Amino acid sequence: MIDQTLLPVELKEIECRDTEAVWDAIKMLKVRGAPAIGIAAAYGICVGIRSFFSEGDSEDKGQFFDLLNRTADYLAASRPTAVNLFWALDRMKRIARELKDQKTAAEIAVALLEEARKIHEEDRAMCRKMGEYGASLVHDGDGLLTHCNAGGLATAEYGTALSVFFISAEQGKKIKVYADETRPLLQGARLTAWELHQAGIDTTLICDSMAAQVMKEGKIQAVFVGADRIAANGDTANKIGTYSAAVCAKAHGIPFYVVAPYSTFDLKLENGSGIPIEQRDPEEVRRGFGRQTAPDGVKIYNPAFDITPAELIRGIITERGIISPVNRENIEKFLG
Amino acid sequence: MIDQTLLPVELKEIECRDTEAVWDAIKMLKVRGAPAIGIAAAYGICVGIRSFFSEGDSEDKGQFFDLLNRTADYLAASRPTAVNLFWALDRMKRIARELKDQKTAAEIAVALLEEARKIHEEDRAMCRKMGEYGASLVHDGDGLLTHCNAGGLATAEYGTALSVFFISAEQGKKIKVYADETRPLLQGARLTAWELHQAGIDTTLICDSMAAQVMKEGKIQAVFVGADRIAANGDTANKIGTYSAAVCAKAHGIPFYVVAPYSTFDLKLENGSGIPIEQRDPEEVRRGFGRQTAPDGVKIYNPAFDITPAELIRGIITERGIISPVNRENIEKFLG
Repeated sequence: MIDQTLLPVELKEIECRDTEAVWDAIKMLKVRGAPAIGIAAAYGICVGIRSFFSEGDSEDKGQFFDLLNRTADYLAASRPTAVNLFWALDRMKRIARELKDQKTAAEIAVALLEEARKIHEEDRAMCRKMGEYGASLVHDGDGLLTHCNAGGLATAEYGTALSVFFISAEQGKKIKVYADETRPLLQGARLTAWELHQAGIDTTLICDSMAAQVMKEGKIQAVFVGADRIAANGDTANKIGTYSAAVCAKAHGIPFYVVAPYSTFDLKLENGSGIPIEQRDPEEVRRGFGRQTAPDGVKIYNPAFDITPAELIRGIITERGIISPVNRENIEKFLG
Repeated sequence: MIDQTLLPVELKEIECRDTEAVWDAIKMLKVRGAPAIGIAAAYGICVGIRSFFSEGDSEDKGQFFDLLNRTADYLAASRPTAVNLFWALDRMKRIARELKDQKTAAEIAVALLEEARKIHEEDRAMCRKMGEYGASLVHDGDGLLTHCNAGGLATAEYGTALSVFFISAEQGKKIKVYADETRPLLQGARLTAWELHQAGIDTTLICDSMAAQVMKEGKIQAVFVGADRIAANGDTANKIGTYSAAVCAKAHGIPFYVVAPYSTFDLKLENGSGIPIEQRDPEEVRRGFGRQTAPDGVKIYNPAFDITPAELIRGIITERGIISPVNRENIEKFLG
């Protein structure tokens, strides 16, 4: 996998040949983004159980399952708040359990590798689907804005919002993407600009506060962002600054789209007010990049997310189609 | 003067005991902001002509004026684009010329020091006036937002937008100020947060993209910003990100005020479209914090300013009163 902590200055691929290396990659944020963490954990199980076979032709399935469970528990501790991590590990363990009685350890190991590849492939296919639906809204020559990083680094291959750009480019549309740098952690500058630039897409990095001006200059025809969580009425939690971009898009008559898989919807939440907003360390703002840029002692407000209300969202692009207009009825209908 | 290049980490006052020290302070941005540069240059003249007297009791006024003109020319070269620098130097030279025939060199030197103090005092009085008019719009308990640095560091004592906060606090109003950090150069984090915090005002630093969220949370009752240039119809050029803040304020029904002296109006400009937008070095965004945070090769758009249209501005607060509503007729009437 790509060591994302070195981006955008260095592109280095790391090989994880044992569970410790996978654990370390997840823990140290070398891999990040919910789907990518899930995929890494699934392959991590496969890497972990290899030692069972290297130690001879044991057919002690009890030992095999011991190793499997220990590997899963160990990987689960790498980032205890990452929901996708547990989801992927549970899925791997379930497959193994289902085959426990009919199959040999070697056969189960093969099935686990297949399952990891399936998780990987499913995510890839889902990203492409979202990209295709999103690209149907993009015209040749469009200027497009995105915020934060909803790209391939966080998923398999194409990502969510960025998938729209990648597929549009594949379709031969000439697009010009503006990427918000996304303070305080600069995922837009470090990751999005890097991914798009690597892919040969015409990319311009801007500071977050410049988006309104770029819109006013007529350079933006649509905004595409990812989502962390979507409530039953369509209110969307995403990286701080998303709401600001949505307000500015509205003021300039520019359509604002959220690109996210079905799994992002949380129908238990009536609306966005139920989504807790994580407050992050003030030092991310005060000393973001190796140098102190704000005085000691001054208060800093550093919410990780904001909520964009449904009425500012022209459509939610999922792997099964586009939900538009965004309201409770349409979301219920779509989610079946 | 305060060496502003060391803020917000270190508060160090420098003493400029010769013209070279003043030149260096202006050149190296130890002093910045149009009014502050003008004041520094005026005192710089006084410092420069002292050597005439230390060399004995010469009454060769030709020599005195030679030294005066050389000092002025030298200081003028420190920041050749700073209009206030020339304005202050011209004003000092004019005073000297007017007294040339009636007064001795020593008397002219005294008059020049008086003139420098007058320039200083006029700016201080102007800042207080703007602050008083602005504070009339502030209520006890208000949350107030500002962008960039329109404070005392750029002027004498109180600044423009920040003067509103200082005077409000003097009047005993409990205010809570939110300061946009103001990417890319972080004047809000480095200077505004520092000034307000030093003054004991309840100050919270936020990233620019958080302003909309803070407004949505009901924490902001008014926005006050400075201005670089105001057109005849009230369109206002100010630091990049000001327009974004104005759009978000409008969307949340929050009044947005510009605080600027009369000298900021440029009536030759019909409207904001005539104001050229300086493009700055992309490296300010790519390596803003001492470390590279965006990939090489990716394009960066880095406008220094944006234009906030008059219709987003509830009022323009000047040293002679508040212009509201902001339109051509009212501005003409006010400027007489």
